[in-house]
Amino acid sequence: MKLKDLFIKTRKDSEALCAPLETEDYVVQPHPNVSPPKWHLAHTTWFFEQFLLVKYAENYQEFHPDFGFLFNSYYNNMGERTLRQNRGFMTRPTVTKVYEYRRYVTDAILKLLDYNPIDEVLKLVEIGINHEQQHQELLAYDIKYILGTQPTFPVLGEIFKLKEATQVQEWLSVSEGIYEIGYQGDGFCFDNELPVHKVYLETFEISNKLTNNGEYLEFIQDGSYDNFNLWHDEGWHFIQNNHIKHPLYWHFIDGAWYHYHFNGLEKLNPNLPVSHMSMYEAYAFAAWKGMRLPTEFEWEIAASQLNWGQLWEWTNAAYQPYPGFTEAEGALGEYNGKFMMNQTVLKGASVATPKGHERPTYRNFFHASSRWVFSGIRLVKK
Amino acid sequence: MKLKDLFIKTRKDSEALCAPLETEDYVVQPHPNVSPPKWHLAHTTWFFEQFLLVKYAENYQEFHPDFGFLFNSYYNNMGERTLRQNRGFMTRPTVTKVYEYRRYVTDAILKLLDYNPIDEVLKLVEIGINHEQQHQELLAYDIKYILGTQPTFPVLGEIFKLKEATQVQEWLSVSEGIYEIGYQGDGFCFDNELPVHKVYLETFEISNKLTNNGEYLEFIQDGSYDNFNLWHDEGWHFIQNNHIKHPLYWHFIDGAWYHYHFNGLEKLNPNLPVSHMSMYEAYAFAAWKGMRLPTEFEWEIAASQLNWGQLWEWTNAAYQPYPGFTEAEGALGEYNGKFMMNQTVLKGASVATPKGHERPTYRNFFHASSRWVFSGIRLVKK
Amino acid sequence: MKLKDLFIKTRKDSEALCAPLETEDYVVQPHPNVSPPKWHLAHTTWFFEQFLLVKYAENYQEFHPDFGFLFNSYYNNMGERTLRQNRGFMTRPTVTKVYEYRRYVTDAILKLLDYNPIDEVLKLVEIGINHEQQHQELLAYDIKYILGTQPTFPVLGEIFKLKEATQVQEWLSVSEGIYEIGYQGDGFCFDNELPVHKVYLETFEISNKLTNNGEYLEFIQDGSYDNFNLWHDEGWHFIQNNHIKHPLYWHFIDGAWYHYHFNGLEKLNPNLPVSHMSMYEAYAFAAWKGMRLPTEFEWEIAASQLNWGQLWEWTNAAYQPYPGFTEAEGALGEYNGKFMMNQTVLKGASVATPKGHERPTYRNFFHASSRWVFSGIRLVKK
Amino acid sequence: MKLKDLFIKTRKDSEALCAPLETEDYVVQPHPNVSPPKWHLAHTTWFFEQFLLVKYAENYQEFHPDFGFLFNSYYNNMGERTLRQNRGFMTRPTVTKVYEYRRYVTDAILKLLDYNPIDEVLKLVEIGINHEQQHQELLAYDIKYILGTQPTFPVLGEIFKLKEATQVQEWLSVSEGIYEIGYQGDGFCFDNELPVHKVYLETFEISNKLTNNGEYLEFIQDGSYDNFNLWHDEGWHFIQNNHIKHPLYWHFIDGAWYHYHFNGLEKLNPNLPVSHMSMYEAYAFAAWKGMRLPTEFEWEIAASQLNWGQLWEWTNAAYQPYPGFTEAEGALGEYNGKFMMNQTVLKGASVATPKGHERPTYRNFFHASSRWVFSGIRLVKK
Repeated sequence: MKLKDLFIKTRKDSEALCAPLETEDYVVQPHPNVSPPKWHLAHTTWFFEQFLLVKYAENYQEFHPDFGFLFNSYYNNMGERTLRQNRGFMTRPTVTKVYEYRRYVTDAILKLLDYNPIDEVLKLVEIGINHEQQHQELLAYDIKYILGTQPTFPVLGEIFKLKEATQVQEWLSVSEGIYEIGYQGDGFCFDNELPVHKVYLETFEISNKLTNNGEYLEFIQDGSYDNFNLWHDEGWHFIQNNHIKHPLYWHFIDGAWYHYHFNGLEKLNPNLPVSHMSMYEAYAFAAWKGMRLPTEFEWEIAASQLNWGQLWEWTNAAYQPYPGFTEAEGALGEYNGKFMMNQTVLKGASVATPKGHERPTYRNFFHASSRWVFSGIRLVKK
Repeated sequence: MKLKDLFIKTRKDSEALCAPLETEDYVVQPHPNVSPPKWHLAHTTWFFEQFLLVKYAENYQEFHPDFGFLFNSYYNNMGERTLRQNRGFMTRPTVTKVYEYRRYVTDAILKLLDYNPIDEVLKLVEIGINHEQQHQELLAYDIKYILGTQPTFPVLGEIFKLKEATQVQEWLSVSEGIYEIGYQGDGFCFDNELPVHKVYLETFEISNKLTNNGEYLEFIQDGSYDNFNLWHDEGWHFIQNNHIKHPLYWHFIDGAWYHYHFNGLEKLNPNLPVSHMSMYEAYAFAAWKGMRLPTEFEWEIAASQLNWGQLWEWTNAAYQPYPGFTEAEGALGEYNGKFMMNQTVLKGASVATPKGHERPTYRNFFHASSRWVFSGIRLVKK
Repeated sequence: MKLKDLFIKTRKDSEALCAPLETEDYVVQPHPNVSPPKWHLAHTTWFFEQFLLVKYAENYQEFHPDFGFLFNSYYNNMGERTLRQNRGFMTRPTVTKVYEYRRYVTDAILKLLDYNPIDEVLKLVEIGINHEQQHQELLAYDIKYILGTQPTFPVLGEIFKLKEATQVQEWLSVSEGIYEIGYQGDGFCFDNELPVHKVYLETFEISNKLTNNGEYLEFIQDGSYDNFNLWHDEGWHFIQNNHIKHPLYWHFIDGAWYHYHFNGLEKLNPNLPVSHMSMYEAYAFAAWKGMRLPTEFEWEIAASQLNWGQLWEWTNAAYQPYPGFTEAEGALGEYNGKFMMNQTVLKGASVATPKGHERPTYRNFFHASSRWVFSGIRLVKK
Repeated sequence: MKLKDLFIKTRKDSEALCAPLETEDYVVQPHPNVSPPKWHLAHTTWFFEQFLLVKYAENYQEFHPDFGFLFNSYYNNMGERTLRQNRGFMTRPTVTKVYEYRRYVTDAILKLLDYNPIDEVLKLVEIGINHEQQHQELLAYDIKYILGTQPTFPVLGEIFKLKEATQVQEWLSVSEGIYEIGYQGDGFCFDNELPVHKVYLETFEISNKLTNNGEYLEFIQDGSYDNFNLWHDEGWHFIQNNHIKHPLYWHFIDGAWYHYHFNGLEKLNPNLPVSHMSMYEAYAFAAWKGMRLPTEFEWEIAASQLNWGQLWEWTNAAYQPYPGFTEAEGALGEYNGKFMMNQTVLKGASVATPKGHERPTYRNFFHASSRWVFSGIRLVKK
């Protein structure tokens, strides 16, 4: 797809995702990790305005003087920001005003793209598109959390549904040796996927399929949430302190298990891949099976043989820089490097991942305690 | 005013107060003490539905089966309630649906009132009206907090404006003796205003006017927020831990003081009565003046000589039961008695107090740390 | 007793109380309210050094230049103090050094008293003695807490034992009228017991005896810790958040109730007065009985008819200044007034109260949540 | 050294380390990470008692029935444990009793070793020795923290002194290629150092010396603690929330920098290697220099060329299992694996590291926020 078309599509996709929401759903932040949908819509717009229009669009007038700091996220270099945990108190600007802001900036970018933009502009638009696509996936997580924690379990629609994981269990073997890791194509990739570098892998066997709800239920029913031998010390404290006994969105009601998805609360389907567990839980499940999670390198090398894309797959890999990693200069440089501490890598993609982000070298990352991510489990033999 | 007319007026007043809000403003809870306006509108309606319609209206069908627990507040006897601190995450039901709920219940109450209702019903409607009026005042506090903590200081309108306190300073004297405290009229009063009982007061002299911003500014400029001698031990910790250096809604910008009100951010007017300070600050100010705050009994006895009604006036009185106090039976009995612990009484009324709540025996109460109340300072000589 | 003898006795009593402790017991602070015994021994000494010796003893040389700030408590005027919650980390000076400090200061005070001291000195020594006696009672509470929360329940000895409350239940009546409150004798009293003033009391009937463990056990067994109707809202949250289901030091082991006292863990004696409950629990117990707690004025007026002195008795009275109350000048003025906020008065005395502190006008006070106090329940009919 | 002699020496070394302490110093826990010295002495003894004597010593009688759970740490499989954060409240058993316990267990182990013990016993004694040696190093950290946070800065003695880092700056180069990682000797190693496995390293240049105080001071004076561009997002929040502006034990007094060591507070020596900074600070310092920290593999391969052993050196490596890592069965298996989550590896050794623990394959690990570790900085060129 051409850049301009991709830009238009991306801007539309974000809005389509939010279209079924009520105004009220756009505003709240029921968990520090969850941003109000309104904020995502504005922040992705702010990115285009601040990194492109303010610098490259002639005579550009900012939509509103306050938006520069209101919709900043971590880009400390761009000016004082409002506190992340207070995003859910910001009622103004309204949703209507944010949509206006989107149109204003979208039009200005399109105009900028019409006049032979320099390469730097094209590069930044591409980054802006990828940035907005990342936020589309977060929007899916956040909307699910906002609706899924309502006492009334509202129904949004038949979206982001998972396929059943009913393949016959097979173990795919990868032989030991030196492999190359990192993005080698011509297209876009994030700075954290580079440089390409060699790693040495031992032989390993990896599952052809994701763990499903039925298997995970056995783990629960075996008392695993009360068996500290299966858990990281940190994970054990996490589930104890937060009284966690099952994945997020599972509910035990009148003797039966249910789970919430965008189409409402329904009986637990044992054949669907299990989702919405923390890395601690994924790790404990693997330990209970006498197996382990893959490293991010194992996953990347095995990817071509795997059937992936349903859920982000927890690896047993801390998110760290590749040898020779260099951050971009200035504010864009804040993008990835500063998070390379106590975060865990997830590989693959989920049903909520925008097209084009599905590449084996992609390094998604979250804190091990994150449960609202569309995450799953793939085992490796010990 | 007849009960039915008062009921209609009360229902309309609540909605009129919210009319200038954006949908987004109805939803958030930026402080644990602040409830979303939507919640107030629904909760006051829930009161009429649960205490009246469900019991006394023939063939009454509840508007929605979930609303019973969604809009309960402290009435534990009425069923499981959602956590107070999570009110700001509840996006559903929507504002539109809440207004529908209001119309539905208002109509049903009017119908109930049309058919020769028994005295118990009339009594409960009167309580319901007073309950909703109390929430109207809280609505004013909460709306001001929601808007006043927006980084953009939105303007709501020319409402609830204070009059300047520019009277000549006089000291009104009350002689020692036995006085009667408590409500003695025929109209409505809350259970905490009863029984009427005698107290013995020493002679005291009370100010004819409230402390104003100019006087309070001198207190600030004298370094009082750094002088622990003026403060309660608890108050000193409160201002230290919360980095409080001035009343809520005051801002020091480019060398000048401003304060926020519903009409926006404006230069501090030294003649307006000072408002939005905690009881700790009121107490420290009095100490700095070499004076003290009145007790609630002193205030009640002096009331006929005072010019009051601008701001609730902090007393140096803990909120405690009158001798012989008895709580109502059942859920309504939860209303007042259970809060008689570590709360401070405020007397008088504010510009946001609904008509009819302005009686000298009224006992308003908040925790000493509350700053979003429309509160002021009246001094008594030591 | 002559002042000098009383001084000598007081100094000895504090040390006698600590004599059975191990060095380790002197050091720790297992709860923010609990101070290390070592700290009490040093702080009471510091009081004599700073308020007397430094000012009035000729050529006095401070024992150690650091002790001035190390053993300050709330007397902010005396210089920077170490944080209260960190007292339990202070290993130096050692216990041995603190005893040296005590001897040094005791000797210097005795010398000061030998040379015709001015009245101001005598007055301050009297205050210092009363101050140390108050700390003796706190020492008893703190030592009990330190030992009573050891997993091994160590035995200290047969001290501070309660008498059984097995009198026949009677109700003593006091008639309505004007009464005088406050200390009227010639001896020492604290500033908060003054001035003497009149109050008007309604007729009331008060129990001749304290509530005992057996009665309290019925309250527990009736499910009262799960019945929110009995509790203050603040009390209900307190017991929920802290998982409180019984008084402090009670243990349910293998189907039977035990309680810890200085003589070790023993079977609950139903005839002993119940002790170590918060004011919330005392209030809930009274509500369960259909009765109430006395006010502090009722208690003071009834005192001559009561059999008291076993446990401090919770009143339903906030700790507030008497009409005309004035604080002492300077650092000593910090003593009482600054705590007159959200504290509850206890009247009477306990088995750990030093002789001479047992007067009906004494106003002890603690936060309603305090459970380590030697506190009990006396009921008044509603 | 023979096993028996090493055992005797190890037991003596722990006690020698504590010999200069006052009884009080043995008891407190001024930070959740810091255990009371008494606890270390008992816990290392408990290890020998529970894993050896209880299982292998004929007719062995436990020293005390309570010590089994009192001195357990993370070994959940061995029975209920007391909460880690409450260790500093445990005054009983006393220090004297703990030394008795040590003698009792030491004697029993010696006796066990005298009667032709089976290999399993010898293996466990070796593990127990290594375990106690690890605690010796922690003892050094904890004693320094306990004394170094006393307001009086007590002097312990001339121990664990660092050598100046005044070598000429050189950069040692290691060429890219496949290297072997992990312990290959015949002696003792921990499970986390195995299995030996291959890694692929890129070429890198590593400093011949540690960063010293003078260099670190420049970093401070350049405003680096206020420059978010240098920090991990997590690190930036850590220093903001904890108001950190310099390494632990540094003090700025009357215009000059001082640092605390066991020999007391003294002027900052710019030539000593900088110590006691978190990994966040080490990372930020490297970023400020335009360099980076080594990975753990780089460090291990370069070790033979380096002059190390003064301070543990922060790597930019999360603590994770080696390929094929398997945990020991049962309680001993809890030892290392369960901490492989959000911990950072430190390589080398410190002046407080017991002889025999100084091997290049040793993997020390702490949370990135840990500042009381004897840690230092070694740079690698970017």
